[in-house]
Amino acid sequence: MKHLNEETIRKESIYSGRIIDLSVHDVKLPNGKESKREVVYHPGAVAVIAFTKEGKLILVKQFRKPLEKVIAEIPAGKLEKGEDPLECAKRELEEETGEIAENWVSLGSFYTSPGFADECIHLFLAEGLSEGIAGTDEDEFVEKMEVTLDEALTMVEQQEIHDAKTVFAVQYWQLKNKMK
Amino acid sequence: MKHLNEETIRKESIYSGRIIDLSVHDVKLPNGKESKREVVYHPGAVAVIAFTKEGKLILVKQFRKPLEKVIAEIPAGKLEKGEDPLECAKRELEEETGEIAENWVSLGSFYTSPGFADECIHLFLAEGLSEGIAGTDEDEFVEKMEVTLDEALTMVEQQEIHDAKTVFAVQYWQLKNKMK
Repeated sequence: MKHLNEETIRKESIYSGRIIDLSVHDVKLPNGKESKREVVYHPGAVAVIAFTKEGKLILVKQFRKPLEKVIAEIPAGKLEKGEDPLECAKRELEEETGEIAENWVSLGSFYTSPGFADECIHLFLAEGLSEGIAGTDEDEFVEKMEVTLDEALTMVEQQEIHDAKTVFAVQYWQLKNKMK
Repeated sequence: MKHLNEETIRKESIYSGRIIDLSVHDVKLPNGKESKREVVYHPGAVAVIAFTKEGKLILVKQFRKPLEKVIAEIPAGKLEKGEDPLECAKRELEEETGEIAENWVSLGSFYTSPGFADECIHLFLAEGLSEGIAGTDEDEFVEKMEVTLDEALTMVEQQEIHDAKTVFAVQYWQLKNKMK
């Protein structure tokens, strides 16, 4: 599929931040013309679908500056440089919820916004939970909650659950139940 | 949930581009300390789950500069300023695939990367397809394809389908089949 490729002719670095970098690429299009592509570079992240012994899904409420509101998401966090996604998932689950899981299953990965960003989320299923030590990042404030599938579906409807990884997780749960 | 809020004290505009803007907020955290939040502003987007008369899912292959590779996605596109999401979905489906749909159903919306961006994708189901006029944006090069559910699941496994909205769409299709 090389005929769809867009080759970078020039790349200007606009911003190099704490979490993201921004560059603007001048690209040569498949038809020979030029265009610009704005690209946000992100270290990647993990997200965890974790069910309690009672079969409830663990969510964390968190204020999200880009949305200027609190939403409920599955536990998640950014990869440290060079960090293994599974190790990151274990760390983030314990930090954000105080839970340790016995069994971990990789559910694959996905890019969140391939049009403008390279963020890739690695998704895991965590089973067999027991109590660890909660303690968030020093500048991260989250509130743990546990919900039934019906509660989760209502939260999706009311946009309290409103981000890609978490609506995916709720749909995963629906599908899992149907496949029993 | 006001106790989780992060108030912006200062906001610095870093970049104002063709598609995205970038700002850095100095925020006051719930514990009174200060931190920085890097925020990408995006106009929002639509995505369309469209099935052919033969029951295949329509995908478009597209080179994505942030990933430096071609992936297959459900038809999608950015909202023009003030554009109604449904109108945008109709426009994008026809532009990218040459298809017009008789019935449109809103499947809700989700934020793709609430940690650093405000991009919201409005998802639609398009049914009753007929031929319209294909013709992409002048700097957009896509290749249409139609896949069965088994083919789509293999593409997810092989990371040819590798973005949030499209893995969500494939899972939606699985769930829909199970609910029949």
